[in-house]
Amino acid sequence: MTIPDIQSQPDERKINIDKVGVKSLRYPILVEDRQNQVQHTVANLNLYVDLPHHRRGTHMSRFVQVLNNYHQDMIIDQLDTFLDELKSVMNAEAAYVDICFPYFIQKQAPISKINSLMSYDCCFNASFKEDYELWIGVTVPVTTLCPCSKEISEAGAHNQRTHITIKLQYIDFIWLEELVEIAESVASCEIYPLLKRPDEKYVTERAYSRPRFVEDITREIAQILQNDKRIKRFIIEADSIESIHDHNAYALVRSNGYDTNS
Amino acid sequence: MTIPDIQSQPDERKINIDKVGVKSLRYPILVEDRQNQVQHTVANLNLYVDLPHHRRGTHMSRFVQVLNNYHQDMIIDQLDTFLDELKSVMNAEAAYVDICFPYFIQKQAPISKINSLMSYDCCFNASFKEDYELWIGVTVPVTTLCPCSKEISEAGAHNQRTHITIKLQYIDFIWLEELVEIAESVASCEIYPLLKRPDEKYVTERAYSRPRFVEDITREIAQILQNDKRIKRFIIEADSIESIHDHNAYALVRSNGYDTNS
Amino acid sequence: MTIPDIQSQPDERKINIDKVGVKSLRYPILVEDRQNQVQHTVANLNLYVDLPHHRRGTHMSRFVQVLNNYHQDMIIDQLDTFLDELKSVMNAEAAYVDICFPYFIQKQAPISKINSLMSYDCCFNASFKEDYELWIGVTVPVTTLCPCSKEISEAGAHNQRTHITIKLQYIDFIWLEELVEIAESVASCEIYPLLKRPDEKYVTERAYSRPRFVEDITREIAQILQNDKRIKRFIIEADSIESIHDHNAYALVRSNGYDTNS
Amino acid sequence: MTIPDIQSQPDERKINIDKVGVKSLRYPILVEDRQNQVQHTVANLNLYVDLPHHRRGTHMSRFVQVLNNYHQDMIIDQLDTFLDELKSVMNAEAAYVDICFPYFIQKQAPISKINSLMSYDCCFNASFKEDYELWIGVTVPVTTLCPCSKEISEAGAHNQRTHITIKLQYIDFIWLEELVEIAESVASCEIYPLLKRPDEKYVTERAYSRPRFVEDITREIAQILQNDKRIKRFIIEADSIESIHDHNAYALVRSNGYDTNS
Repeated sequence: MTIPDIQSQPDERKINIDKVGVKSLRYPILVEDRQNQVQHTVANLNLYVDLPHHRRGTHMSRFVQVLNNYHQDMIIDQLDTFLDELKSVMNAEAAYVDICFPYFIQKQAPISKINSLMSYDCCFNASFKEDYELWIGVTVPVTTLCPCSKEISEAGAHNQRTHITIKLQYIDFIWLEELVEIAESVASCEIYPLLKRPDEKYVTERAYSRPRFVEDITREIAQILQNDKRIKRFIIEADSIESIHDHNAYALVRSNGYDTNS
Repeated sequence: MTIPDIQSQPDERKINIDKVGVKSLRYPILVEDRQNQVQHTVANLNLYVDLPHHRRGTHMSRFVQVLNNYHQDMIIDQLDTFLDELKSVMNAEAAYVDICFPYFIQKQAPISKINSLMSYDCCFNASFKEDYELWIGVTVPVTTLCPCSKEISEAGAHNQRTHITIKLQYIDFIWLEELVEIAESVASCEIYPLLKRPDEKYVTERAYSRPRFVEDITREIAQILQNDKRIKRFIIEADSIESIHDHNAYALVRSNGYDTNS
Repeated sequence: MTIPDIQSQPDERKINIDKVGVKSLRYPILVEDRQNQVQHTVANLNLYVDLPHHRRGTHMSRFVQVLNNYHQDMIIDQLDTFLDELKSVMNAEAAYVDICFPYFIQKQAPISKINSLMSYDCCFNASFKEDYELWIGVTVPVTTLCPCSKEISEAGAHNQRTHITIKLQYIDFIWLEELVEIAESVASCEIYPLLKRPDEKYVTERAYSRPRFVEDITREIAQILQNDKRIKRFIIEADSIESIHDHNAYALVRSNGYDTNS
Repeated sequence: MTIPDIQSQPDERKINIDKVGVKSLRYPILVEDRQNQVQHTVANLNLYVDLPHHRRGTHMSRFVQVLNNYHQDMIIDQLDTFLDELKSVMNAEAAYVDICFPYFIQKQAPISKINSLMSYDCCFNASFKEDYELWIGVTVPVTTLCPCSKEISEAGAHNQRTHITIKLQYIDFIWLEELVEIAESVASCEIYPLLKRPDEKYVTERAYSRPRFVEDITREIAQILQNDKRIKRFIIEADSIESIHDHNAYALVRSNGYDTNS
């Protein structure tokens, strides 16, 4: 029995489709880990290709089939090959992947030196049209302490959890761990999963001695990234869960090379 | 033409259904406002009835039909009538409604006295089996400042946004505004949408002078509610977006009258 | 007593900030309603300005103060004035607002003609740098029925709830209601909050008679928008909660005028 | 230097705290896998103990310390030991853990026999007061096809993705894989990550031949669980992302042994 292939029908509407594919697919992945060689985690993926105006539909099942070829591999180290294979299998001129996952790094408490695991949300966004382009990104929770609140108050200062997101395109390879370190270095203080009392004293005093606005956070990271020859373009965000409001304070800095409206 | 009524078919499986209905229905509602008589907001609703073992299905469209009868009314003031009507229309022995909505209260900044609107997430959960039962609940964002961090540190203290949730059954009517006031009264400091610099100085110093653990928050509210003769049962939660961790600190206190495992 | 103004301090880091402000602020708003003149709803807002490199911080409280001036007004009809006021109050060269809200439209069931209220998620994204730019957007839930599944199967066809999002910039005013109508017109079938059995028969048969891929949906809308002289640029997405998978099927079409990578 | 221990201060308020601890902690875990012995995944955890009225606070860091002892172990197989250790370390009379994680099972497409990985959300909720109690739960996405729609329509029938959740307490061990199989066995059709055209024909026709209301789903599972001697108590939910509405259809059945209001 022949089963008709509706997707391969011709299309007369003269409309190219920019992206078509599968969204919000969950998949276990292996990620290269600077410390421990390899890390198991769980990713959320979007996989798209373009579709020329003359074909009616894409073949959705092939996205998952190509992904399955990378099941026991470190897919994020070979997204170019993966996208090239997608283009070929889909007969497409452009392919896209968004792959987001929690990544765990061992952190040592500052005084007690007890280790614990901290998780960071990472996203890789890659596209392969004529050229392969990769954006890597990581979101780092830190403490920020308000410089204004400290200055104007007799004691104390409001502080809060702030999410710093660094997204960038690199020329030479950069570890996620390096981005985490940069984000943590500019914060009022780093965040740890486990703090004993001497550690809590340390992080409280350190945050109080290093007040930072979201503006400061994004500017200090921008200065570091601008001077790093390995980096081509970047976007930096700081999103602060203000302890004195029910809304967030937010800042965004883009390198000049990135010129969209988004 | 007669259209068959599949839902009304008999069922042989001898299984009563505890709840069946529509979930996550969005609907504009009117709420009684202590200050301004009436407030427009948008609710998310679940509407359920029970279904005896001998009937195959409920009639989903009737939930929305009954709801439509309350469109221009203050539905949350008459959830008993609403549920009674649901039971009757559905030919059911029990009816349930969950209705959650943001509720806005004008807040005056402590020093500048500038007004702004603060939103609070409210949920009413009502059931009508033999008796009508109503739980009202409100989530109040506040500032908490850590007593341990303050005590052990030379300067500063970590603080953060904390969500206090009070759910209760009352014997005599209680305003949502009263629950908000109780939650805000026990916090290290209230939260405001708009703070000028003199206000920010005030809230910083006030929070620093009133350190509170999540344990303290829940206990202080429990003391207040225990002594309020209008209240039958309560559940109090404090969920603190710790500024020094990427996880939350959490405490829960229930009145003795409420004895489930949940 | 003079309270120091830390935000107004000079900054030496030579980094302009693209956007800084308040994020995820909830606020009740009034929206112009084609049918009923005015509609009350609740918005989630982001408000940003740029910050020149020589100033350390923005004044966050002013965002809410300016917003308060529009409390009883239909803010989305005057976002240009609002952003102009933000620029002026903040002494900024660019101002941005994202305002998202559920919008309710009365829908009549196709056969029984019973009315009920359907909600649509809307977002307006406006910026005012040298020029004022406005993107309006609406997400419309519809039914899509798979053409392939119908063609290859002896009976039935998988179908599902699909979210169509239309975002556009217009030259001449367009109602949200018009975008909803366009999205619903190309779907396999419209969605209704309330359907009696004759209505359910109608929507089932209609969906079965009008199979559509996500590719079809985006292309048909693109054809309509291309021919509408009032429209300058658009982005169309269809995101289908596949009933046969646990991931979604997705398609995106952009007008040629919109040339970013996002 | 001695650092004061504020948490260990006495408390005069006479209020026992039911639960206090850490919430929303992300952690990599190992899970026993019926097919492959062991599976790596990422969990979200809540860890609580009770706190007697005479002590002011719990010691939050110890939760993470105890958890770290189970880092390379299969924690979900020894939640009793874990909770017992928590009670002991915390000097508490009750300990609680909620541990939720995606779990992957290989599925073979029905006709093409191609394998792919399907993820299921699992939650284990354990408490240890005098006795140890464990609830296991899994959410299974399936296809449901509406019996009414099929019966009243000349062709087609609306269908959609439905989430079936089974939570239970067992007397004798039950695999998560068994609960998944039960949920999938009663659905109109199972869901697969990868379906070629012959598979899509199969699932379409199978779903059309097996129409099920959410009422049917919960009742059929209840019948199976009632007859399984290993099971003590259960809660079954079906939550259907209706393709013809923007709200869900929902049903819940509890075994008689479970008598709370929740």
